[in-house]
Amino acid sequence: MIDLRSDTVTRPSAEMLAAMTSAPVGDDVYGEDPTVNALEEHVAGLLGHEAGLFTVTGSLANVLGVRALVPRGGEVLCEANAHIVRAELGSHAAASGVTTRTWSAPAGQIDLEQIRALIAPDLGPYFVTTSAVSVENTHNFGGGAIQHGYDALADELDARDIPLHLDGARLWNASVASGVPVAAYASRAAAASVCLSKGLGAPVGSVLVGSTELIREARIWRKRLGGGWRQAGVLAAAGLYAVAHNVERLASDHANARAIAEVLADAAPGSVKPDQVDTNIVVADLASTGRTVAEVVAGAREAGVLVGGVGATQLRIVTHLDASAEDCRMAATILARLVS
Amino acid sequence: MIDLRSDTVTRPSAEMLAAMTSAPVGDDVYGEDPTVNALEEHVAGLLGHEAGLFTVTGSLANVLGVRALVPRGGEVLCEANAHIVRAELGSHAAASGVTTRTWSAPAGQIDLEQIRALIAPDLGPYFVTTSAVSVENTHNFGGGAIQHGYDALADELDARDIPLHLDGARLWNASVASGVPVAAYASRAAAASVCLSKGLGAPVGSVLVGSTELIREARIWRKRLGGGWRQAGVLAAAGLYAVAHNVERLASDHANARAIAEVLADAAPGSVKPDQVDTNIVVADLASTGRTVAEVVAGAREAGVLVGGVGATQLRIVTHLDASAEDCRMAATILARLVS
Amino acid sequence: MIDLRSDTVTRPSAEMLAAMTSAPVGDDVYGEDPTVNALEEHVAGLLGHEAGLFTVTGSLANVLGVRALVPRGGEVLCEANAHIVRAELGSHAAASGVTTRTWSAPAGQIDLEQIRALIAPDLGPYFVTTSAVSVENTHNFGGGAIQHGYDALADELDARDIPLHLDGARLWNASVASGVPVAAYASRAAAASVCLSKGLGAPVGSVLVGSTELIREARIWRKRLGGGWRQAGVLAAAGLYAVAHNVERLASDHANARAIAEVLADAAPGSVKPDQVDTNIVVADLASTGRTVAEVVAGAREAGVLVGGVGATQLRIVTHLDASAEDCRMAATILARLVS
Amino acid sequence: MIDLRSDTVTRPSAEMLAAMTSAPVGDDVYGEDPTVNALEEHVAGLLGHEAGLFTVTGSLANVLGVRALVPRGGEVLCEANAHIVRAELGSHAAASGVTTRTWSAPAGQIDLEQIRALIAPDLGPYFVTTSAVSVENTHNFGGGAIQHGYDALADELDARDIPLHLDGARLWNASVASGVPVAAYASRAAAASVCLSKGLGAPVGSVLVGSTELIREARIWRKRLGGGWRQAGVLAAAGLYAVAHNVERLASDHANARAIAEVLADAAPGSVKPDQVDTNIVVADLASTGRTVAEVVAGAREAGVLVGGVGATQLRIVTHLDASAEDCRMAATILARLVS
Repeated sequence: MIDLRSDTVTRPSAEMLAAMTSAPVGDDVYGEDPTVNALEEHVAGLLGHEAGLFTVTGSLANVLGVRALVPRGGEVLCEANAHIVRAELGSHAAASGVTTRTWSAPAGQIDLEQIRALIAPDLGPYFVTTSAVSVENTHNFGGGAIQHGYDALADELDARDIPLHLDGARLWNASVASGVPVAAYASRAAAASVCLSKGLGAPVGSVLVGSTELIREARIWRKRLGGGWRQAGVLAAAGLYAVAHNVERLASDHANARAIAEVLADAAPGSVKPDQVDTNIVVADLASTGRTVAEVVAGAREAGVLVGGVGATQLRIVTHLDASAEDCRMAATILARLVS
Repeated sequence: MIDLRSDTVTRPSAEMLAAMTSAPVGDDVYGEDPTVNALEEHVAGLLGHEAGLFTVTGSLANVLGVRALVPRGGEVLCEANAHIVRAELGSHAAASGVTTRTWSAPAGQIDLEQIRALIAPDLGPYFVTTSAVSVENTHNFGGGAIQHGYDALADELDARDIPLHLDGARLWNASVASGVPVAAYASRAAAASVCLSKGLGAPVGSVLVGSTELIREARIWRKRLGGGWRQAGVLAAAGLYAVAHNVERLASDHANARAIAEVLADAAPGSVKPDQVDTNIVVADLASTGRTVAEVVAGAREAGVLVGGVGATQLRIVTHLDASAEDCRMAATILARLVS
Repeated sequence: MIDLRSDTVTRPSAEMLAAMTSAPVGDDVYGEDPTVNALEEHVAGLLGHEAGLFTVTGSLANVLGVRALVPRGGEVLCEANAHIVRAELGSHAAASGVTTRTWSAPAGQIDLEQIRALIAPDLGPYFVTTSAVSVENTHNFGGGAIQHGYDALADELDARDIPLHLDGARLWNASVASGVPVAAYASRAAAASVCLSKGLGAPVGSVLVGSTELIREARIWRKRLGGGWRQAGVLAAAGLYAVAHNVERLASDHANARAIAEVLADAAPGSVKPDQVDTNIVVADLASTGRTVAEVVAGAREAGVLVGGVGATQLRIVTHLDASAEDCRMAATILARLVS
Repeated sequence: MIDLRSDTVTRPSAEMLAAMTSAPVGDDVYGEDPTVNALEEHVAGLLGHEAGLFTVTGSLANVLGVRALVPRGGEVLCEANAHIVRAELGSHAAASGVTTRTWSAPAGQIDLEQIRALIAPDLGPYFVTTSAVSVENTHNFGGGAIQHGYDALADELDARDIPLHLDGARLWNASVASGVPVAAYASRAAAASVCLSKGLGAPVGSVLVGSTELIREARIWRKRLGGGWRQAGVLAAAGLYAVAHNVERLASDHANARAIAEVLADAAPGSVKPDQVDTNIVVADLASTGRTVAEVVAGAREAGVLVGGVGATQLRIVTHLDASAEDCRMAATILARLVS
């Protein structure tokens, strides 16, 4: 099976497993796991922040990050298809009491004019004030799109003294594709998360970065939400390996995704615009193909390719380190047959 | 002082006070206040619903209504300036764990296309599903605008089996101005709130309506949130009086608001469009007048008129039963002088 | 019907109603209701605190008071039958995220030894620290018992820098019966609530008192929980009347309760100890009478007397200003017949 | 260093690491990690339940288990020093809105009489009803005590139709020491958690067991709280290894703890009762020794032994698979010197 449903399906390589088994570990609740500590420091440094916190998921990193910036009853603004409002099960409201308002834009893009209109100034304690704006970069449901206007938004928020939250689950992809260092993105945010278990191929884990004080508090809430693990060094070792070895190679995933998009665009013109495939995610709209998402997903499965649907008419294909260029070419051929 | 900051500033009339003091009362926590019961039944009937619940505020009625329709971690969609996301202190998230996504439209209008794009179908338990859509009619921060396309939205939601929540704090105004009976609006919603203490002039209170089962549960949560009052019949009597005597007269408030708008439009062309003043709220944009909101608010106060600001450049003027046509004319003259 | 189920069933007198209709009112959300302001100042002064907040219920006053003292995830200690853990629907957990541990004592008494054993010192951020201790005085489910050892507990907590919360729903009763001024009780607490709608006979309302800063924050959370009412002065007037006229007369309620207890003790020896009836609540244990609570409640109802059950074998009788000495004598006779 | 602070400090052995690196893994969010699935099925079977859920911590397993049994605003009863109220940061209140009342007993024991007195029957929707009782077995802060009267409590709760929650973080220890199979304990509970990372030596993870329906819902809430990990099979493999190889050997830990207790009892008579050391935890009371906890902890550290304090005068020593009989003898000698 060629599994292109998500970049979360990757399995640790032999080298990564070797790193995991040779890492010194300790009790991370006591702050004594040297490998966890090394990972947190390394990623914080990479991202231009004082401190880091290793979390079991990107969702947890986002919940802790937003919570640190937004008081109970306060609001965070984000795009309407952002992961934090679509795929984190309402956790920001349910666990943190944070409310949201949203703008909508193609590919989940930043829309500065809409954001300006949404920002609620402090009108006194009886109105909701905008406490933070969250940007997801790249934007998952926006087809892996690199967010444009990121610095302009950061400048605007700086001027208004509103912190920026960065959901950087796939920030590595954005950086490799754009050539902008991850620190150039992340250092503009008061809190940022990056994921080790998507494109980078670690089995489990994300890192939240921010100020020492923000991370200190996030560490307490991590435990309150049941995420205070023990000898997490075995996983942190995978994360360190992934950051060291699997970032640059994301360019191949991007090339593979672009190649798939080109094949699909040929087979079903209008279904996807290859030059809008910024990174490792292809979203193809089947509306004009006469095929339903369910048909194509089922047909592909039968032919040995796993892909997923998002929304009513959209197919999602995600490349990653466990799918070679050859795998991707084969998958593209199979999908092309199904949609044409 | 002529107080046009809000229709929440009205004081009970002598007749209303008389009704309050002659009403039989009892312990409403035990369901034994006959006047509360009468109010709840009467308003439920008026709005085409099985049951009603008398609440201390419209915010509480909305919190209980939305909570009844949306599970913890689920989402309600609403316009970005709706009262429930702007003026209820994030309560839907903080107390109910309900998350929100928003569309933006002039005058807070329903935008069916945007709503369709926002509605999240049930993609399984790991995604947020749209559990309800909320409409505020008239829309407070939208300048008291009657919501167009209400029935079309209700039809669409019916077809998708998504309940509609109606924030009808000023539904009486919408009904009087549009000629559409309140039941025609409210009966389309699975839960609706109406306010007795805004245009209708009762000192305190709102009513939530819905099915018997929804209200039974809302009654428990009303107590959990500290709103289970005792001999509330003294207030319910004011509410019954208000519904009986103060609905039709809202037409005067609307005429007064329109008249103020016309004076302002003459004095500061472009600041307000009188034909868009649907009901009792005038929002004038001072951007082109060369005056700041703070200046005009202060100047008006000095001249004996209270008005408020909303947003950076907008003045809000609200008419109500304690402001006579003469009061409103005088206020308009004073404001016209300040903005021209 | 002679209604002795609770002192919450009282109805406003003609004089109280007159006070209500002649009171000046305004919009309390804007802080402009002069009668609400007067009530808040008066009660705060009476209780030896800087500021007060008029709330729709005692439950809300308690939720706001505890919340102000205990952070989310922190703990308040209280007796196992305290109103805050038995009759406020878990609101402290559900709305404020406050956890509780409890001691158990006859009549809901303070037990300093147990409390000392429960108090959790600050062992670092991974353990729950005791943030407050709450005492209910008089103790409702403890049969209206005055709490002994109140000052010793307050001293102990002062020494440990742990704030005391006082649920003073019936503090007036405690004060009248013990001769200790309400301020002597309330000023030991960092936050205290008193109820106007129980023994004092106002239709609706409680007051939370504390520091200016605590009340400022409680006011915001009052609105967040949907309790930010408007022209509440009509109710505040009843509260001011009640505080002025209905406190001293509680002594009659206490005498009536004692008299009922004596009759019951004669009729069913061991069911109640009259000398333990401190105030206006009689709890009679029917275990040894051969009668069930349901039987006695039903029989009394048939004979024109309403009483309630608490727990499996206990009958609760509550005296108040709408039950005269004669009413209470008659009720006692009827109940005596039923239990003997 | 001989680290006897907790059995959470153990490190995976070479054999366990080998199991981890050879395990097949997949995306557990999709339910596709074969090793996770195997662990969940195996542990559920061992414990006599339909289904299991692998969680990152015991705290998360407890939060999800209690949440499944107790509605928001409902209550769980537990002993006052139970882990769920002392060491889970108020999560049951903060994340689940669950309120608690507690009994207190030496060694954290079940006290059926107290529990009976606490259980709140359903008095209608305005009172808190007891939705579950939680027992921790062995009881951590109770010195690793096996809980007596477990079956009698389970019988009582069955008769009253109140579910039992079992915090079985150290249920393996209870079972090995008492000879009662883990299923005999766990099958009495509607939800039970067991830990793989304490005495069993896995680096990370616990398992919650219950009915298929309970686990289905817990799985959703696991993700909502940020605990929905991906290729967790690497950790599940450690768990499977631990369950297969490290349960029986707990008897050595128990013997080592007893031996330490005997040495301490000789050195400081009255500080500990060796025959009350049921399992792998020794709690020594230094009150009569003239030494403070801080002194002894510091002195031990200097001599190469790590132990911890619990409470004002109590020292806690925990044995585990990384502390050999020889290590424990040496530690006992050092501690004996410090306390005598």
